[in-house]
Amino acid sequence: MLVRCVVYRDGERLADIEPHEIHHYIARPGCFVWVALFEPDAATLEVLQAEFDLHPLAVEDAQHGHQRPKLEEYGDSLFAVLQMIESVDGELRAGEVDIFVGRNYIMSVRSRAERGFSEVRARCEREPALLKHGSGYVFYALMDAVVDRYFPILQEVETELERIEEQIFADTSPRANIEALYALKQKLMVCRHAVGPLLESLGNVSGARVPQVCFGMQEYFRDIADHLQRLNQNIESMRETISTAISVNLSMITLQESETMKRLAAYAALIAVPTLIAGIYGMNFDHMPELRWRYGYFATLAVMTAIDGYLFYRFHKAKWL
Amino acid sequence: MLVRCVVYRDGERLADIEPHEIHHYIARPGCFVWVALFEPDAATLEVLQAEFDLHPLAVEDAQHGHQRPKLEEYGDSLFAVLQMIESVDGELRAGEVDIFVGRNYIMSVRSRAERGFSEVRARCEREPALLKHGSGYVFYALMDAVVDRYFPILQEVETELERIEEQIFADTSPRANIEALYALKQKLMVCRHAVGPLLESLGNVSGARVPQVCFGMQEYFRDIADHLQRLNQNIESMRETISTAISVNLSMITLQESETMKRLAAYAALIAVPTLIAGIYGMNFDHMPELRWRYGYFATLAVMTAIDGYLFYRFHKAKWL
Amino acid sequence: MLVRCVVYRDGERLADIEPHEIHHYIARPGCFVWVALFEPDAATLEVLQAEFDLHPLAVEDAQHGHQRPKLEEYGDSLFAVLQMIESVDGELRAGEVDIFVGRNYIMSVRSRAERGFSEVRARCEREPALLKHGSGYVFYALMDAVVDRYFPILQEVETELERIEEQIFADTSPRANIEALYALKQKLMVCRHAVGPLLESLGNVSGARVPQVCFGMQEYFRDIADHLQRLNQNIESMRETISTAISVNLSMITLQESETMKRLAAYAALIAVPTLIAGIYGMNFDHMPELRWRYGYFATLAVMTAIDGYLFYRFHKAKWL
Amino acid sequence: MLVRCVVYRDGERLADIEPHEIHHYIARPGCFVWVALFEPDAATLEVLQAEFDLHPLAVEDAQHGHQRPKLEEYGDSLFAVLQMIESVDGELRAGEVDIFVGRNYIMSVRSRAERGFSEVRARCEREPALLKHGSGYVFYALMDAVVDRYFPILQEVETELERIEEQIFADTSPRANIEALYALKQKLMVCRHAVGPLLESLGNVSGARVPQVCFGMQEYFRDIADHLQRLNQNIESMRETISTAISVNLSMITLQESETMKRLAAYAALIAVPTLIAGIYGMNFDHMPELRWRYGYFATLAVMTAIDGYLFYRFHKAKWL
Amino acid sequence: MLVRCVVYRDGERLADIEPHEIHHYIARPGCFVWVALFEPDAATLEVLQAEFDLHPLAVEDAQHGHQRPKLEEYGDSLFAVLQMIESVDGELRAGEVDIFVGRNYIMSVRSRAERGFSEVRARCEREPALLKHGSGYVFYALMDAVVDRYFPILQEVETELERIEEQIFADTSPRANIEALYALKQKLMVCRHAVGPLLESLGNVSGARVPQVCFGMQEYFRDIADHLQRLNQNIESMRETISTAISVNLSMITLQESETMKRLAAYAALIAVPTLIAGIYGMNFDHMPELRWRYGYFATLAVMTAIDGYLFYRFHKAKWL
Repeated sequence: MLVRCVVYRDGERLADIEPHEIHHYIARPGCFVWVALFEPDAATLEVLQAEFDLHPLAVEDAQHGHQRPKLEEYGDSLFAVLQMIESVDGELRAGEVDIFVGRNYIMSVRSRAERGFSEVRARCEREPALLKHGSGYVFYALMDAVVDRYFPILQEVETELERIEEQIFADTSPRANIEALYALKQKLMVCRHAVGPLLESLGNVSGARVPQVCFGMQEYFRDIADHLQRLNQNIESMRETISTAISVNLSMITLQESETMKRLAAYAALIAVPTLIAGIYGMNFDHMPELRWRYGYFATLAVMTAIDGYLFYRFHKAKWL
Repeated sequence: MLVRCVVYRDGERLADIEPHEIHHYIARPGCFVWVALFEPDAATLEVLQAEFDLHPLAVEDAQHGHQRPKLEEYGDSLFAVLQMIESVDGELRAGEVDIFVGRNYIMSVRSRAERGFSEVRARCEREPALLKHGSGYVFYALMDAVVDRYFPILQEVETELERIEEQIFADTSPRANIEALYALKQKLMVCRHAVGPLLESLGNVSGARVPQVCFGMQEYFRDIADHLQRLNQNIESMRETISTAISVNLSMITLQESETMKRLAAYAALIAVPTLIAGIYGMNFDHMPELRWRYGYFATLAVMTAIDGYLFYRFHKAKWL
Repeated sequence: MLVRCVVYRDGERLADIEPHEIHHYIARPGCFVWVALFEPDAATLEVLQAEFDLHPLAVEDAQHGHQRPKLEEYGDSLFAVLQMIESVDGELRAGEVDIFVGRNYIMSVRSRAERGFSEVRARCEREPALLKHGSGYVFYALMDAVVDRYFPILQEVETELERIEEQIFADTSPRANIEALYALKQKLMVCRHAVGPLLESLGNVSGARVPQVCFGMQEYFRDIADHLQRLNQNIESMRETISTAISVNLSMITLQESETMKRLAAYAALIAVPTLIAGIYGMNFDHMPELRWRYGYFATLAVMTAIDGYLFYRFHKAKWL
Repeated sequence: MLVRCVVYRDGERLADIEPHEIHHYIARPGCFVWVALFEPDAATLEVLQAEFDLHPLAVEDAQHGHQRPKLEEYGDSLFAVLQMIESVDGELRAGEVDIFVGRNYIMSVRSRAERGFSEVRARCEREPALLKHGSGYVFYALMDAVVDRYFPILQEVETELERIEEQIFADTSPRANIEALYALKQKLMVCRHAVGPLLESLGNVSGARVPQVCFGMQEYFRDIADHLQRLNQNIESMRETISTAISVNLSMITLQESETMKRLAAYAALIAVPTLIAGIYGMNFDHMPELRWRYGYFATLAVMTAIDGYLFYRFHKAKWL
Repeated sequence: MLVRCVVYRDGERLADIEPHEIHHYIARPGCFVWVALFEPDAATLEVLQAEFDLHPLAVEDAQHGHQRPKLEEYGDSLFAVLQMIESVDGELRAGEVDIFVGRNYIMSVRSRAERGFSEVRARCEREPALLKHGSGYVFYALMDAVVDRYFPILQEVETELERIEEQIFADTSPRANIEALYALKQKLMVCRHAVGPLLESLGNVSGARVPQVCFGMQEYFRDIADHLQRLNQNIESMRETISTAISVNLSMITLQESETMKRLAAYAALIAVPTLIAGIYGMNFDHMPELRWRYGYFATLAVMTAIDGYLFYRFHKAKWL
């Protein structure tokens, strides 16, 4: 689906055009075309490949989707794959945006992601001074938007982790904790797959060997790299925390088992001791003086109660009960 | 076994030839020879070594087999070892294809792998425009085919991992889960041994120092490297997931043990308490008023039942039963 | 909030000035301006951005806060983010100081941290010989102060770790130990986030590619890098120690469980054996000679006691009791 | 002990000589001397140091032994330390061979290893075409022999690992499994210490900066590096497998414990329930109608048996028994 | 405390001098001064700083102590920090020696370490040929002595590790094993902190960029680096072994627990079965034929004994008892 196809000159919008007119405009000096697609069919992609003269391998990647984030140079032009993470029903779903950037064009192909980039376009059009930089600036703006959307996602994961941490030490629902930690680890992996490879390939843009279209904007791309680094650090911290939490949870389970065992043993003792006493007075010896006592039975019950009372006190003091 | 031996000129098939004719053809400008072998005997290899003037160390490697994936330059020519993974009866079996590439020849030696490369040859012959690039393109096409076949294998492993994950939390068959996770880890290692070293050595082809036969095709080899990177990332994720799953499984086993212990203890209590009461009324004191009551026995049975009923209710509420 | 804004010439304080006068002074040769801010409002920052001609991305970072430590060059000037760790109620709180350094100015923006840098200013003013080096020296002095403040924080963590270590082997409160180790790991992570990235980016200042403002002071910055390396090594050691401590703690819990089980079993035996004997003499056979003995009952009690005594001795010797 | 001392010219053996004659021969163009020593005494080494003009630090290393594998250049000559692993009574024993190579000599000093290099000498003498390359080729041949002998050792370790893997899941002898895994890990470490450092230092010979004596033989040394890489990969895989096996073994032990507990609990129930019934009919109430029944006793026994039969059936179905 | 202050010329001792005379001698060509200090006071250090013109940051480090091992260049001179490990009452104590080396002086500042370097001085003076190299050679000799003293320390740790390994599988004192392993890990960390950073910074001396004072002695420093590498490898191996030992120890504890549980259950059965039989004959049914038998009681006792005998035999065969 074609979302928008607009020509800009000197940072100002010139016109909304049709895809087949593109080659007229990108031939004009000072103009650049910004195309936004959403899950386009093969025919549309083919037209645009011809208009922009895109490399077949890059187009093939865009068509297949499910790429890992990357930044590839094809001659003067750049092909970027970014992942867009959206939280749907408590699950993280990784969509994708593929961006083709040339000297005077930029084309984004979004797939499996609800939220588009109309706000990025609006912001760019509000700042003609920056938009004058051309396709390189738009490329930065799109990437910045994608990366900024990772923060609330990760914040969500962090909040959930904190919730679980509290429950681990509260001793409630160890089973749910394990499941939640496991699920969280999977979520984190989704984030890591989006952030890690992008950070890596961004090194080329903000580092020494700068592609031509990004020239003069290194500081902006370094800013994105810095955001990614922050995300990455948070992800790594949480991974480590989750690992620790899993092993701490195992310790807590073992500990609880141990405590339960003690409590059970204490109760068992409270029953076993009177049972022994009862057994003794159930013996059939001819000569057992206590059995003849008038209050022998009651005395025995009293002794049983007293012993149990004392045991209970001791167990309670030892924190077994 | 010789599978095929064909001469190509300008991207078109010229003729099927015999191995001993090869040196005539590779002397002609614009021609290149594509030989496919399957587990060849020593004699055949010797003939071809002479025809192509292959380096003895490379031929020795091809003869011995069981190499790790690699890409080695011998002067102008390249020697590549790739692993072919096939799923046989639920096990992953690693076969091998050794490829010798020179300016005007390419020879593949396949071992311990069912599936050949006839489809690669068919595809190449359907695209003469690309086949014109010569042996370098065929080298790419073969490598691409091998790498593409890793995807379904890994997909299979992933599906199995998901199946196990569900069972872990379903609490059924912990023993089978451990065995399955262990087997899965072994499978993953087979994949890793095929992908990892190849990715490493491919760096040379797609990076700065490009061997002559691959010249002008760097973008194609970068595409393969990108696929390998994706595979590699998936493998690493799954390895981590399996490790986590193993430790989570241990937690689940410990937890189940703990829960079983509680249930057993509850049942033990349901038996021990009436046993104590029975013991008390089995005592032989002369003076035990209850024993004389008309309905003492029935009252006692009723009390026993009531206590057990209450205990059952409490245990049930505490989720022990 | 503006804390101070002072002009220095030749290492001597010239005057306290107002922010809007800054551009007069930084135009004069040999002068430099040192501004200290604490959680400034947007307006103040805007004024200073204009006076010093700061890069908008750096100012944006300072405004947003919550950056990871870094050192970025913007043309001739440097932008540094450092984290300030303070221990508040047993928790570690990470504040931040953002420093903008140019040839003839330095501006620090402190947030979420109680303790300021007035002592650094005092020390600098006491040593005019060093202050003559200009903004680069002040930059060093600020960074040195921040890094030196990490040492007591880490010392505190280390002391706590030693306290827990003792408790682990003392067998008391395993639950508290787990919680404490977990909390300590989190604290350590706060320290690591402050130290690690800073050490990394400091490589540029003390290594080969030295920013202009730090020129001639490499040995001073290398000294800071060395301090950070020491901190980093301590952090890594403690992380490893905590991991080991967690798994050792699990071993201790399991071991204690095992020992408790033995003790319980021993007590159970002390009860079960006399219960069996009592059961035997509770049988109703017509012909049980012992039952007729005059002292049969007392003899039985004596036997019970003797057996229990012997068992107790054996259990005690085996260290079960 | 001097094993052999031979002069070669143009790939042919010239003469067996005495150590003190060496300096005559190494002065002649086209000749090279190949000396083999086995645990030589200090005096012998001193003579040879003088004849070959060896560096004192290298000779000191050879005399002390117990070096880690390495390759050091001393001016034009090379000093190599390789470890020789031999399997003695189920233990792996690391011997050592120190090799001094110069333009026209090679000397091997073997210690703590049974098997010598006579077969290497025999093979070299059978291939004069290769032996013509001089000391560099002999150096390759010795190193190749040492590395090739690692393969069966590692194969042995692998076979043992597979044997243990089967036992882990067969549930027999968990104690023996742990001990065997631990011992295997130690064996693997012996292999790793032989392979790892050698692979590292071989990078210099097969990579860019080639020592003079190895010139023109890079492809041969690359072949050795490739073998080492394969060994290294196997070692790393096995290390990981052993770690997994240890934790899987712990899971199996815990699981078995859990299963044993269930079986014990089931048997306990089979005894406790009839004991309760017996207790009830052991009560001394005046009015207990069942006690008066003619077949009350037998009915009770029947009920006990029936309940136990039912319980057994249930436990059996639940796989507890 | 000043230990010695000696001038050397051409490898021969010239004179013992006072610190304030130093600047006279270091001005003379061919002379160099070797000063040894032990925990000097501030005044002494100040004098020597002036005499040798030492960098204030280096002197500050020497005064503060507790540095990590490092090698820093200050212009033409070097500042080295080495750790000296001494075993005191079963604990490892890390002392420190700080070395200042210039073209014609060397000064060692030892702290918190008993053993000095008089033997190094003696050895150097016995070998004037080597001592002629000047301060660089003395620097090597001191460093070599420090590193050589690490070997017996590590040997001690290794011996202790082997002792613990035996105990783990001997099943005795699991608690002591855990404590010992934990303590060993701490000791190893002390060694690692001494060896690791030194090895790292030594790369500069033995590698490409050689400081002037070490010129012509690279092979000697490479020898030290090689020793450190060997120490480092041993430390890493032991760390891994300890980690494995800790987890193996946990397995052994769990296993022992499991075995104890079985033994306890077996004994419980030996008591519970006769108790049940006694309970049955304790029932008060009017019609229980066995009770009337003349030898019913003895027969019952015999049956009890027989059953227990059989059970014991079965448990013994199953290795539970």
